[in-house]
Amino acid sequence: MNKETYSMVEAYMQQCMSDSAHDREHVYRVLNNALRIAAEEKHVDYDLLICACLLHDIGRSAQLRDPSLCHGEVGSQMAYAYLTEQGFGETFAANVRDAIRSHRFRKNDPPRSLEAKILFDADKLDVVGAIGIARSLAYQGTVSAPMYSRLPDGTVSDGTGDTVPSFFREYKFKLEKLYDRFYTEKGAALANERREAAQQFYADILREVRESACPVQDLLGPVLE
Amino acid sequence: MNKETYSMVEAYMQQCMSDSAHDREHVYRVLNNALRIAAEEKHVDYDLLICACLLHDIGRSAQLRDPSLCHGEVGSQMAYAYLTEQGFGETFAANVRDAIRSHRFRKNDPPRSLEAKILFDADKLDVVGAIGIARSLAYQGTVSAPMYSRLPDGTVSDGTGDTVPSFFREYKFKLEKLYDRFYTEKGAALANERREAAQQFYADILREVRESACPVQDLLGPVLE
Repeated sequence: MNKETYSMVEAYMQQCMSDSAHDREHVYRVLNNALRIAAEEKHVDYDLLICACLLHDIGRSAQLRDPSLCHGEVGSQMAYAYLTEQGFGETFAANVRDAIRSHRFRKNDPPRSLEAKILFDADKLDVVGAIGIARSLAYQGTVSAPMYSRLPDGTVSDGTGDTVPSFFREYKFKLEKLYDRFYTEKGAALANERREAAQQFYADILREVRESACPVQDLLGPVLE
Repeated sequence: MNKETYSMVEAYMQQCMSDSAHDREHVYRVLNNALRIAAEEKHVDYDLLICACLLHDIGRSAQLRDPSLCHGEVGSQMAYAYLTEQGFGETFAANVRDAIRSHRFRKNDPPRSLEAKILFDADKLDVVGAIGIARSLAYQGTVSAPMYSRLPDGTVSDGTGDTVPSFFREYKFKLEKLYDRFYTEKGAALANERREAAQQFYADILREVRESACPVQDLLGPVLE
């Protein structure tokens, strides 16, 4: 791929994601992660990988408007249509489409090509570690979800078994479990380097919250008449 | 204060903050922090402290509707009106009002009474440590602010000297500097216990971001034709 083609696909990505500077930075981090993983692999189709990375989240705004849609599915079709319109070959466009469609956790649609596996891992690297914690907290803020829930006895739940959305639930149900689900060796290694940062933050915030959020009846007991 | 009075003031707080379960939890954490600090002080007026803690953020929704308003100022007036209407004495209501008015960082209006200082510190304890990081990130998500900004050369700024709002800017301009601004010994000690968690998270995320977000031209150089 030459620089002009890269800039053209990049501009289309920016146009699709124009509502959030944050999401563009996510795309660049994913592209960067992907290139670091690709450097350890053989026979990588870089044109395919770069297009798949740049376009992997262009279906996000459709999913935001209609949450019943899957941004992987929508984005894969948008990418296929865009690339064939721009004169890329059908096989190439179909390979990009398939990589984008399989970048989410879906048991029945795992990534198959090497480039699809690299995209998957590069995207998941942005959900682990301190960055994953930060993105998850920012998302919880966007949808006005709380940091934690209370158990029936009034104590703070650590997230395990929670049904109501919260940051602690997201950590226990998703973030904590990602590290064993990488496809490439380099992806798994990079994720492992970031594992302790996430574990440490979760341990720190759980300790602080439990110090500062004991049930109101307990702390007021000695003070109220 | 008896339990009935506590429950009445608590219900008023909940009514004022009914749009966000998250903010109620903040109020309970502040009350808890305040009682822990108060246990190390002499001659604390607990009725005053409890009322000031419960009501310290009731002006938030007015500030959300009109950002030119200060929620400390608005909330202090609301608390005074509420307490005098409910039959609390004027002096007591005025003391609660003054404590609430001075709970924010304002050079010309520092907390003066012991209870005002305890409220100030208890509220600031919820801005330090991992909880402070989490609340700041959630807020950045709510207002769609990015995690970081780029410097003119395309590298990621650590937040120092930034003018555009971001999480890194918030950390450098506010979160990092809080620890020396506590009024009570216990408040400062509790803040210090949480200092390392915040420092560690910031160091971790800055390292990860710089690994994954080097300028696009640098990483693509060897790959593009």
